[in-house]
Amino acid sequence: MKRGKVIVISGPSGVGKGTVCRELMKRYPDLAATTVSVTTRAPRPGEVEGVHYYYRTNEEFDKLLAEGKFLETVDKFTHRYGTLLSEVERVLSQGKNVILEIEMIGGANVKKAIPDAVLIYLLPPSLETLLERLNGRGSETEEQIKLRNSQVEKEFDQAEPYEYFVVNDDLSVAVENVKKIIDAESLKDDFRNVKKNYFGRN
Amino acid sequence: MKRGKVIVISGPSGVGKGTVCRELMKRYPDLAATTVSVTTRAPRPGEVEGVHYYYRTNEEFDKLLAEGKFLETVDKFTHRYGTLLSEVERVLSQGKNVILEIEMIGGANVKKAIPDAVLIYLLPPSLETLLERLNGRGSETEEQIKLRNSQVEKEFDQAEPYEYFVVNDDLSVAVENVKKIIDAESLKDDFRNVKKNYFGRN
Repeated sequence: MKRGKVIVISGPSGVGKGTVCRELMKRYPDLAATTVSVTTRAPRPGEVEGVHYYYRTNEEFDKLLAEGKFLETVDKFTHRYGTLLSEVERVLSQGKNVILEIEMIGGANVKKAIPDAVLIYLLPPSLETLLERLNGRGSETEEQIKLRNSQVEKEFDQAEPYEYFVVNDDLSVAVENVKKIIDAESLKDDFRNVKKNYFGRN
Repeated sequence: MKRGKVIVISGPSGVGKGTVCRELMKRYPDLAATTVSVTTRAPRPGEVEGVHYYYRTNEEFDKLLAEGKFLETVDKFTHRYGTLLSEVERVLSQGKNVILEIEMIGGANVKKAIPDAVLIYLLPPSLETLLERLNGRGSETEEQIKLRNSQVEKEFDQAEPYEYFVVNDDLSVAVENVKKIIDAESLKDDFRNVKKNYFGRN
């Protein structure tokens, strides 16, 4: 069976990563499988270990982190969340894709751990659009805006490992472009695999 | 302006390269621009130098070949045809794609000359299908069939630089898959270019 792929979707804050990912999964529910994450928060009523999350203590989380077991981690408020490399490998080996909506710095780490991961960077229609969204409507001083803008520019230097750039102007167009990338990537193969499949030997 | 890409479509004889390319251009006439080839044959009535072909003598053709001016050449009957690297570069720099339907060995040369060329290999639904098509219906001896089959397998070792593999079972599916690859490839970019476009400097 052909392995699935890790699809990383990143982009500056305010570009609409979450909206694009949700719409993509709504239109194409079979495009990717979900992985079970590790969390340090307590299970809520009805939540099941290994189904909703793997529930771990802070100390256990630290241990997994130190052992390099995580593909990526994120802190939200007082809780921590992490995607296990083993969990992702399990899904990929079943021939299914995994979609990760993560920060740029995380994308670079994913690419190091899984070299055939597909890194997609979502872009705003223009820098002005993005800055307008980020800077709000006159609530910041000129100094604050300048600082913010230079941070956006600096952050962008981490985009090096990203290969695909999709402009999120029209949501539907952006979603279909991401879909095309995933479909095209699934047509990639190594000629040795193809030969093996056709001729039954290397 | 973003450069176009060279799209190479190859595959074993009998797989339907020509049919896929023709159907692709019929459905998506704007997908790629055509290049003017060099030929050693004489112009036919109504044909115009630089529009239909560049008409050159055998000696002139040899000189261009020796100077490394060709991206690929092919001999058909007593005439020779060649695609000029300069001609392809002209079209790419206009932001247009170039589709080349060529043999595998040519694909490797194209990839060397133009590293971001996209190499697509068309596959038959199965080895059996291909061999049936090639071996005809009982007109060859078992020895001839064996030789042919080992040639097909040997030829396949040249598929190394090919990245995408599209099965041509249903023509329409194959054409749409090639289209998806070309669309996805057009979404590829280098983050330096993207940054330059957004921030106006490197």
